[in-house]
Amino acid sequence: MRDSGCIFCAIATGQADASIVYEDDSVIAFMDLQPVTPGHLLVVPKTHTVGLEDLDEDIGIQIWKVAHQLARALRRSGLRCEGVNLLLADGEAAFQEVFHVHLHVFPRFAGDPFRIDADWRVHERGQLDETAAAVRGGVVALDLGSD
Amino acid sequence: MRDSGCIFCAIATGQADASIVYEDDSVIAFMDLQPVTPGHLLVVPKTHTVGLEDLDEDIGIQIWKVAHQLARALRRSGLRCEGVNLLLADGEAAFQEVFHVHLHVFPRFAGDPFRIDADWRVHERGQLDETAAAVRGGVVALDLGSD
Repeated sequence: MRDSGCIFCAIATGQADASIVYEDDSVIAFMDLQPVTPGHLLVVPKTHTVGLEDLDEDIGIQIWKVAHQLARALRRSGLRCEGVNLLLADGEAAFQEVFHVHLHVFPRFAGDPFRIDADWRVHERGQLDETAAAVRGGVVALDLGSD
Repeated sequence: MRDSGCIFCAIATGQADASIVYEDDSVIAFMDLQPVTPGHLLVVPKTHTVGLEDLDEDIGIQIWKVAHQLARALRRSGLRCEGVNLLLADGEAAFQEVFHVHLHVFPRFAGDPFRIDADWRVHERGQLDETAAAVRGGVVALDLGSD
């Protein structure tokens, strides 16, 4: 249930300090130590779970429900909040740094320091259709229980 | 139920082209026209919904469930996928561009063009505790039904 070297497990069991905003039987939400903006919080399962592969479906739903409510709470918190981002990084290639799954919820406002960048070119329909077929193949593989 | 100027409503009702990967009574998932990486898809409610404020809780849960499954499907799709990001932009300040709520799900791999940037300084515990208190105040305001 707990990974002894995991900081989020230590927070979930009260063995490490955190600024907690919400807690129930399956999830806990607390302030990120390195906030993008004031109010940046993380929603995590209490049971050690690395990412989306080993995340129980029902606990995932609870993470989402709490994040949805806390995003709405941020807009009523008095903190500067003109928008909200939810962000989940699953895997090192996706910039996951703590390998206990966590959903970021953070306020946004005009002029804040958060930036994203990519190559935003529009792709052709044929290319998108081929990609969609590949994804649907992945859904079939998932339904068949194959990796 | 439908906003006549909304591209995602047009997709949901079959009046605009899309490369669809999944569909049920309440949500639809299709490829983003401007993919960060091949496989980048959007999960959206069929009913016109601007953002997290007007998003029905149960439909939000369905968006999450589908995104969770499609993230796992991406890893089985044959597309390059060493990690996955989930990203939701709620409000213009959070970089929302289409004002029909959508959850981005996209594969990541070493050397892909997606970048995020912010000021990642560690904040002091006292400051985080004050922020947490503000967020908890927002939760109370939400529970009381005040805006």
